[in-house]
Amino acid sequence: MVKRTRFDDSECPVARSMDAIGDWWSLLIVRDAFDGNRRFGEFQRSLGVAKNILAARLRTLVAGGVFDVVPASDGSAYQEYVLTPKGRDLFPVIVALRQWGEVHFFAAGEPHSELVDRLSERSLAPLRVHAADGRAVDPDDTVVVKINRAP
Amino acid sequence: MVKRTRFDDSECPVARSMDAIGDWWSLLIVRDAFDGNRRFGEFQRSLGVAKNILAARLRTLVAGGVFDVVPASDGSAYQEYVLTPKGRDLFPVIVALRQWGEVHFFAAGEPHSELVDRLSERSLAPLRVHAADGRAVDPDDTVVVKINRAP
Repeated sequence: MVKRTRFDDSECPVARSMDAIGDWWSLLIVRDAFDGNRRFGEFQRSLGVAKNILAARLRTLVAGGVFDVVPASDGSAYQEYVLTPKGRDLFPVIVALRQWGEVHFFAAGEPHSELVDRLSERSLAPLRVHAADGRAVDPDDTVVVKINRAP
Repeated sequence: MVKRTRFDDSECPVARSMDAIGDWWSLLIVRDAFDGNRRFGEFQRSLGVAKNILAARLRTLVAGGVFDVVPASDGSAYQEYVLTPKGRDLFPVIVALRQWGEVHFFAAGEPHSELVDRLSERSLAPLRVHAADGRAVDPDDTVVVKINRAP
């Protein structure tokens, strides 16, 4: 069994984010939650994954503050998994992965799911990285530095 | 050993993206490449991971078209791993994970690495999701549909 390196005490926000999510395909649970899934059985049907694995991934996501567990909205005995505000802040991550996939992994005309704006029913604009002053930047325009800002 | 579900034939671009990257922490290799790392030994020192694991992850990333393997830029016998244009298109994914981490996993004033614009030396603007007409949208403004567009 390969031991995964933990990055929890890293000074890199990318690594801490990845550690909190815990597992690659846990992001698909988050994607399903954005699509309206709330119940264990809904996630299980969507992802086709063993119950014990899904339960473990959900526990990590709840512990990481990505989901809250709440009583079912219909008054039944079910529990529901609802994205916290922190979980909802993963929206750009999911959109970025989706857009990368749309561009690079589908042939022209090949059917795929698409995330559209409800109002216009059109695809979203491609995500672009901008400097604080609004200039679009690409990777070469940026550099990683160690910051120790006053609070 | 848990068998990972493969999503390669899925109609979901998020799933195809994740399948191409192959493993959660392979994104840290991509992050390191954006930071200027090119050689196996550089990635290994940065990530502190076993050589066989790193080699396997790099193979998946090369097979997935994220990295090219090229002769060393200094004429030595080393190989270097260089992001392809497709790999460079992962920039918004890395930035989105970084910004999520910066907001949610560091106390005020806690030191962390930061991705800044070279020109202004200031933090990048937060990534925002926009509709095609430029309106900012949040998750509730969007819906996933199955699209089968003419090429």
